[in-house]
Amino acid sequence: MATRFRLGIIKVLTKDDPDWINNHGRIIEKFYPDLETTTRVIPDQPEGIHDQTSLAKAEPKIEALARELEAGGVDGIFVSCAADPAVERIRTRARIPITGAGGPVALMALAQGRPVGVLGISAEPPPAVSDFLGRHLCGAAAPQGVETANDLYAPGGEEALMEPAQRLIYQGAGAIALACTGFSTVGAAATLAAGLGVPVVDPVIAAGGVIRFMMMTRRQG
Amino acid sequence: MATRFRLGIIKVLTKDDPDWINNHGRIIEKFYPDLETTTRVIPDQPEGIHDQTSLAKAEPKIEALARELEAGGVDGIFVSCAADPAVERIRTRARIPITGAGGPVALMALAQGRPVGVLGISAEPPPAVSDFLGRHLCGAAAPQGVETANDLYAPGGEEALMEPAQRLIYQGAGAIALACTGFSTVGAAATLAAGLGVPVVDPVIAAGGVIRFMMMTRRQG
Repeated sequence: MATRFRLGIIKVLTKDDPDWINNHGRIIEKFYPDLETTTRVIPDQPEGIHDQTSLAKAEPKIEALARELEAGGVDGIFVSCAADPAVERIRTRARIPITGAGGPVALMALAQGRPVGVLGISAEPPPAVSDFLGRHLCGAAAPQGVETANDLYAPGGEEALMEPAQRLIYQGAGAIALACTGFSTVGAAATLAAGLGVPVVDPVIAAGGVIRFMMMTRRQG
Repeated sequence: MATRFRLGIIKVLTKDDPDWINNHGRIIEKFYPDLETTTRVIPDQPEGIHDQTSLAKAEPKIEALARELEAGGVDGIFVSCAADPAVERIRTRARIPITGAGGPVALMALAQGRPVGVLGISAEPPPAVSDFLGRHLCGAAAPQGVETANDLYAPGGEEALMEPAQRLIYQGAGAIALACTGFSTVGAAATLAAGLGVPVVDPVIAAGGVIRFMMMTRRQG
């Protein structure tokens, strides 16, 4: 595998700081050195995706960026959001593999072979995550005072995660799925895993593994 | 990630040809260049695992080899069989991550976002595979005249796969999970994908991705 793959990343929270824009791309390139990433950001959603309204508003913008990235020659697309917004719709049309973060974080949590607790920014897990978990889902929780991904970046945002994560362990979780890619931005998986002693699955790293696998599988055929 | 991971592989079909013994290790090292593999083979099972009796006979041997590999300092263990034999039992005791091929091939097939057809060496998919698929499983099939993995290596063994795979597509499969690691030995995924036009998930490559993810997650914590 001397081959490399070009991965297009779509971020769903509008910011113009280039360092912030490329943060998920850097995580993926660190864990998957043969992926080369290009990131695009949807316009006019400074609060990101955090409810049905913001989801519906984001979907056509994500579709448009996916079309542009595919035309630009990427080998695969990652929509960096645990709600997998527009992913199913793009999949029916695109000629390249596409994933969100919701499916992959659920799948990599299942791979741990333990009941899965979902830690998100809302107490109700995104359907993209809960759908695959089925009877292996043992509970869901969210930190207090966090309503959008931005709240995770505020001072104290990360500490607020330990309490709901502990609650999931008490409910029987043997692995934790982080159901918001904002958790990846603040490096929550490593901090939580050190404190909890169970595997904590980072949604961006999980998605990187899944999309790399999909691109390899596609190239093989 | 300049780090490398040492992966112990346990093969469940007894042969003494060193080239054959290391074939799944070579596949994993090709697709995951930072993994370094060491393979051990269970004794006295020249027919491998193909029914309940051969499964029960193999399990204590796999447990013993896993203990030896862990004592030898590997970072993770892959039992190269889609029935995930002894995996759950070893997981309760081992201090390192462990996977079979059954869970991973199901998870990577689900990641494709399409109904999954399972192609195995028996028409009934291994529970390790069907368990995760739930309502996404749309059918299972096996080639005629194949009863153990050895039959796949016989002349004509590989051609016999196209017909049952086509049948799965007619049943609505949008992705095929190969539920026997003998399919990896003969390179069936690439051949089938080229003929079928849908993603075909190789169990050894899927397991390599999952165990690499588990080892990374563990090291992070």
